[in-house]
Amino acid sequence: MANIEFWYEFASTYSYPAAMRIGRLAGEAGVDVRWRPFLLGPIFKALGWNDSPFNIYVAKGRYMWRDLERICAAEGLPLKLPPVKFPQNGLKAARLALVGENKGWTPAFTRAVFAANYAEEKDISDDDTLTAILEALGIDPQTALEAANGPANKEALKQQTEEAMARGLFGAPSFIVGDELFWGNDRLETALQWAKRN
Amino acid sequence: MANIEFWYEFASTYSYPAAMRIGRLAGEAGVDVRWRPFLLGPIFKALGWNDSPFNIYVAKGRYMWRDLERICAAEGLPLKLPPVKFPQNGLKAARLALVGENKGWTPAFTRAVFAANYAEEKDISDDDTLTAILEALGIDPQTALEAANGPANKEALKQQTEEAMARGLFGAPSFIVGDELFWGNDRLETALQWAKRN
Repeated sequence: MANIEFWYEFASTYSYPAAMRIGRLAGEAGVDVRWRPFLLGPIFKALGWNDSPFNIYVAKGRYMWRDLERICAAEGLPLKLPPVKFPQNGLKAARLALVGENKGWTPAFTRAVFAANYAEEKDISDDDTLTAILEALGIDPQTALEAANGPANKEALKQQTEEAMARGLFGAPSFIVGDELFWGNDRLETALQWAKRN
Repeated sequence: MANIEFWYEFASTYSYPAAMRIGRLAGEAGVDVRWRPFLLGPIFKALGWNDSPFNIYVAKGRYMWRDLERICAAEGLPLKLPPVKFPQNGLKAARLALVGENKGWTPAFTRAVFAANYAEEKDISDDDTLTAILEALGIDPQTALEAANGPANKEALKQQTEEAMARGLFGAPSFIVGDELFWGNDRLETALQWAKRN
């Protein structure tokens, strides 16, 4: 079966529409998706940034928020930002998303975290937010959080992020088909076509 | 008539497919295009960059060249880079493009300069390249170059670039419909839809 890797970061704004769209579009294209949470922080740090480029470069940030509004409106996705400073810390959520991979709940968990952040004004670094999401999905929060915070899983997320950097990722969302990299929510359709063709 | 402003910079790689596509797509959409050459150099300088971000951020640059290859292949556009260092200096070409606006030859001249740079391996900062382009379009090179290098036109290009910055532009190509900004070749279709709708 044709397949695609979906690399995303919970703090990344354009990862939100990508996470909400990829299930449907990949299903229609007959492409299997591997969901790969990672952290942009270490990658941005290597580029010399200690904050989101959307905060560092003001005009770019202003544009991004308006562009995201238009994209969400066109997709029928709610967009309601939380009152905490952008970007939110997605570390705990990313560790949980990684735990879910073997259990099969990563896609549903990921969508719920993005909805919490971008539509429900929740603080996704808050254990209560994550616990409520896990419970709503029928996942035992204590077991999941223990696995997420265990040393093996922390190391696995570090390695996932190192793999991202080694494979040329510099932003999120990114899609990889074989060795072919596609960057940005707006490249999802092209990446899926590539996956089908190759 | 619905209309759109097309802001481009000759050194900008993604401005190449945008310049080659916009005439046909705007025609099909019934949208009038105002071609607005400007300079990214002063804008990048204000962001703290003394070079193209595609040179400063190596992974991003590597990705861009591959992405541009894919886009040109999909559009049937040739892509053959000149042996000079990227980015080329587009100052003279931008001044000429501005002169052409009142005469009506800016679109054809712009497409020819992008073709020279990205398909014909020419140095677009070279007077011979620009003279050959003007001659091929039936424009008297001496008159055009004199107007381009006159103080009024130099000032006009400066003001065009200042207007770009004041209106929130931070990259090229950009499209403006009223107050609505769209950034990137991949936003051309959306911008044209916006122009038709509003």
